[in-house]
Amino acid sequence: MKLLRYGPAGEELPGMLDREGRIRALRPIVSDIDEDVLSPEGRRFLAAVDVAQLPVVPGAPRLGPPLRRVREIIAIGLNYRDHALEADLPIPAEPLVFSKSTSSISGPNDDIVLAPESAQTDWEIELGIVIGSVASQLGQDDAMASVAGYCVVNDVSERHWQLQRNGQWGKGKSFDTYTPIGPWIVTPDELTNPQGLALTLSVNGQARQRGHTQDMIFSVAQIVSYCSQFMTLRPGDLIITGTPAGVGLGMKPPVYLAAGDVIDMAITGLGEQRHVVR
Amino acid sequence: MKLLRYGPAGEELPGMLDREGRIRALRPIVSDIDEDVLSPEGRRFLAAVDVAQLPVVPGAPRLGPPLRRVREIIAIGLNYRDHALEADLPIPAEPLVFSKSTSSISGPNDDIVLAPESAQTDWEIELGIVIGSVASQLGQDDAMASVAGYCVVNDVSERHWQLQRNGQWGKGKSFDTYTPIGPWIVTPDELTNPQGLALTLSVNGQARQRGHTQDMIFSVAQIVSYCSQFMTLRPGDLIITGTPAGVGLGMKPPVYLAAGDVIDMAITGLGEQRHVVR
Repeated sequence: MKLLRYGPAGEELPGMLDREGRIRALRPIVSDIDEDVLSPEGRRFLAAVDVAQLPVVPGAPRLGPPLRRVREIIAIGLNYRDHALEADLPIPAEPLVFSKSTSSISGPNDDIVLAPESAQTDWEIELGIVIGSVASQLGQDDAMASVAGYCVVNDVSERHWQLQRNGQWGKGKSFDTYTPIGPWIVTPDELTNPQGLALTLSVNGQARQRGHTQDMIFSVAQIVSYCSQFMTLRPGDLIITGTPAGVGLGMKPPVYLAAGDVIDMAITGLGEQRHVVR
Repeated sequence: MKLLRYGPAGEELPGMLDREGRIRALRPIVSDIDEDVLSPEGRRFLAAVDVAQLPVVPGAPRLGPPLRRVREIIAIGLNYRDHALEADLPIPAEPLVFSKSTSSISGPNDDIVLAPESAQTDWEIELGIVIGSVASQLGQDDAMASVAGYCVVNDVSERHWQLQRNGQWGKGKSFDTYTPIGPWIVTPDELTNPQGLALTLSVNGQARQRGHTQDMIFSVAQIVSYCSQFMTLRPGDLIITGTPAGVGLGMKPPVYLAAGDVIDMAITGLGEQRHVVR
């Protein structure tokens, strides 16, 4: 299933993408894409619905973040060897974990509004993992059962704030519009191998990032299991799994986003995002 | 006002402490201590209630976290000179910001359950700031208007996880029961000077931390203003403002918590916490 939310910001309605790529309305069957829908029971219920019976949503409405309320964003840093090398940072021996504020979340095609005085805002395409059930101290085999789905995430990053404003990366990753999510959450019954996905990102039509989740240093199962050792994961948590090489920071000389730039990004089976920077 | 929540974990009811130190029931006047109650309008409404007319809650119920749902925990590191020195870390030129998972939140007198294999769990008494209205890019003068209240927080920290498990401090600070909050939120009309508070913490009756918020490197107004430059703060956010000297990490040799230890802590005007470690 591909679960999504459509409509103006703050007034999104729940929907589902059908096989023909049309949005089908999910209200009043479910009130929103939330923890209840993401739970194993909620997904079983939705899987039993005959999508062809749901009303088609006309037109091409804006898409919002595909989850009503992300509880927390847990981010994995330097999870692709080539990105660690381009960032001139050591390849981690165990996952590097940091946080982004959920205030930064926006829709998959919303504008990215540069932070005031930002000179170093950068792009990062990442595979997002949405948690659907409580996960505490799970082994790798059990970890995957807590995953409700996957999505495309742009981990937009202000490099000066992240790296030169006194440690702890969240500072450069939490500004409004710096975490576009979507277009939809794809459930694990439809996306069975999260390590088989190509990631591509271009800026103004020029290819910048081209990676593959098979090159992750730590797999989805390892990441979920690892995080669950340090904190209890709960439904609605979003784990973003690191970005491959090709960010602006890694270019010689570095290139950062400017007003008017257009970012296009896609992950196999998870859909596309497009952002105008302003 | 002193706002609190009482009852078994997960079933807490909203209450208010009266001048005689008795708990007065707030339901059905308010459904819970949440963003609505913490808003300027919510606090004005509660301030107009005649507390003497509210039913007294009998007995001595357990106290829960004084806020139904903390949205995010934003933590300031090394905000007291003497603690930075004892930790052998540089005195920050600007606030060091990191995150704790809200999964770690517990009541003010709940047990602290040591993480499995933890050998270095430490205590940190801190002044907590509860945000009551949206704060984005505010100056220091405006920042204080977004504060809904203050509370005692124990920023329990697993030092090995925090410092030796690959950067980014949240990893050592997010385990279940590692963020006791309360006993209550004291609103700014009652606590007018957050820089005039003594903090004390003892372990098994031995004084360990003795600090004063006048020694903060960055004041409450500076911290709220600063954080609001990097992310939009929202009602229900909890900012914890750093700990003074006297943590286990700073002792020669370091001393960490063990099962059976009892922690007592207090901040002027904000009440006391007691934890049994197990």
